Amino acid sequence: MSVGDGRSVLHGEIFEQPAAVAHLLERERRHVAVLSAGWRRANVPFVLVAARGTSDNAARYAKYAFGLASRLPVALAAPSLITLYGVPPRLRGALVIGISQSGRSPDIVETIAAARSAGSPTLAIVNDPESPLARAAAEVLPLHAGVERSVAATKTYTTALAAIALLVLSFARRRKELDALLAMPDAMGRALRSEAAAHRAARVLERADRAVVLARGLHYATAFEIALKLKELALLLAEPFSAADFQHGPIAMAEKDLPVILVSPPATRPEAEMRAVARDLARRGSPVIRIGPRGNGAIPSPAVPEFLAPLVSVIPGQRLAYHAALARGFDPDRPRGIRKVTETR
Amino acid sequence: MSVGDGRSVLHGEIFEQPAAVAHLLERERRHVAVLSAGWRRANVPFVLVAARGTSDNAARYAKYAFGLASRLPVALAAPSLITLYGVPPRLRGALVIGISQSGRSPDIVETIAAARSAGSPTLAIVNDPESPLARAAAEVLPLHAGVERSVAATKTYTTALAAIALLVLSFARRRKELDALLAMPDAMGRALRSEAAAHRAARVLERADRAVVLARGLHYATAFEIALKLKELALLLAEPFSAADFQHGPIAMAEKDLPVILVSPPATRPEAEMRAVARDLARRGSPVIRIGPRGNGAIPSPAVPEFLAPLVSVIPGQRLAYHAALARGFDPDRPRGIRKVTETR
Repeated sequence: MSVGDGRSVLHGEIFEQPAAVAHLLERERRHVAVLSAGWRRANVPFVLVAARGTSDNAARYAKYAFGLASRLPVALAAPSLITLYGVPPRLRGALVIGISQSGRSPDIVETIAAARSAGSPTLAIVNDPESPLARAAAEVLPLHAGVERSVAATKTYTTALAAIALLVLSFARRRKELDALLAMPDAMGRALRSEAAAHRAARVLERADRAVVLARGLHYATAFEIALKLKELALLLAEPFSAADFQHGPIAMAEKDLPVILVSPPATRPEAEMRAVARDLARRGSPVIRIGPRGNGAIPSPAVPEFLAPLVSVIPGQRLAYHAALARGFDPDRPRGIRKVTETR
Repeated sequence: MSVGDGRSVLHGEIFEQPAAVAHLLERERRHVAVLSAGWRRANVPFVLVAARGTSDNAARYAKYAFGLASRLPVALAAPSLITLYGVPPRLRGALVIGISQSGRSPDIVETIAAARSAGSPTLAIVNDPESPLARAAAEVLPLHAGVERSVAATKTYTTALAAIALLVLSFARRRKELDALLAMPDAMGRALRSEAAAHRAARVLERADRAVVLARGLHYATAFEIALKLKELALLLAEPFSAADFQHGPIAMAEKDLPVILVSPPATRPEAEMRAVARDLARRGSPVIRIGPRGNGAIPSPAVPEFLAPLVSVIPGQRLAYHAALARGFDPDRPRGIRKVTETR
């Protein structure tokens, strides 16, 4: 378990991801088909998702996924409306989803409990099916990822994405894409073959103390999650942006001391725009790390249907954060000063 | 207009804010009463807000404001669903609001146009009432802030907050708070008396190249806007967080080289929690700059009803960013490498 031996707990959990996602899909496929048929019949008007940290990044994927597949608007909950101010939203039958690895964030539990008592359909997407969040929700979609021992979440993130994709595609009755989802564990396995490139790219971050991570559209969640891993593991202030928002002001900061990580999975809609952003950043002298098509020093991410790319393209980013932690002398299994469950109200 | 003479264009616009807000309230009060009565009768089920940059921070305020005053769920739009993927959301009569200073962001214009052609009520909150966004929306709420010459938006941010507060409080028929809103220009004037403290606090940022800005609940938008001003003006990678999310992982980064700006307006619900966060950060050795009650070196923000605090407590942050720019040798009137209107699709 020592630093750099490649057998840390985190390293092991990163490699467990393809099997964990395959297991989730096998165990939950029928259950989710039944649940989503019920919500489709109920004609839910919109979706509210409550989550924090890594799970909130999964919620960002849910926002784009429901929007693309079912044209359902998704609001990310502001749990403090309930916990600080005591004012729950009027939900009008909206589907309310809580996402939490541990199922123990009191503010997420409270949000789901308030929605359930207001008569809305509620779902807990949770790794611990005995947790308070699972008990608070009417329905539970367990991640079946096994105990996650690392403080930095990896397999509970990709299994949560897979659970969301399963739910959204079942809800929208997208059979072809459901079949493609079943092939994702294989693609995730290929994404794990990014060792050498991730190791090389991590050197750019060795002496940095800040970075930005850019993506666009459906891949916005991936930028957020990679930035969070860089913060937790490599103690690097990595701020995620939509490439569009970044060009609205923060690009002023671009310079040689600010590495930029560009998430642009192959064969996706934002690819041309992301290439233009890369050229602009190069002109401004920013060191650029690309996660995308193989070649030109990019950390490669295999081509998969765009809707499912977030399950795959986060993996090169996890490996980048892991190697950046090692390069900067931190133990990925012992992030400084954080605990696995954080009890915010 | 030279650096440090206190008569820069930006400095002037920061000081114009109380008068600009007073002017907006006077010009638009009746108009907004009529509009909001119509939407109340239409029983809109939820609100979708489309915005980018500074205006997106105003949208964050709208999310909490509608939630608190009317229990209306608010979703922040993902414009790329329309512009990149061609899939507009199904709105079911939701109120769709576009916020933009210039009214010229093509993706925001497209989002509003799609909502209007789908039959949803649409509103443009915009400084230029002749802009494409104003033409795209069925209704226009002009900010009347006059031309904003600085690239960094200040008076169009606080007038947008005032427009949102006016709309939300009219919609919810909160007469007492509407009266309090009319007193905000006076409180904003008092918030401008933060020169000495902002100047002193800016020294903490003089040699930093990164910072975080924390707030909670209704004040989350203020953290985002102060972080954006620090990025645009002082070229400091300042990342905003909900204090709750920060404790879920990123707090691992806390150390003496990472200044933390805590936004905790006086007499507000999150105050006790923010004090606890301040103590935790002090234990970890982080330099802390407080925006809140007068005393202990804080940049003072006057006490006002919590619902309206975002109009006031951003001002000490604008002044902090201004002084941080000067301390770091940047001209606040010439932010590096950004333009006033950014045309993202």
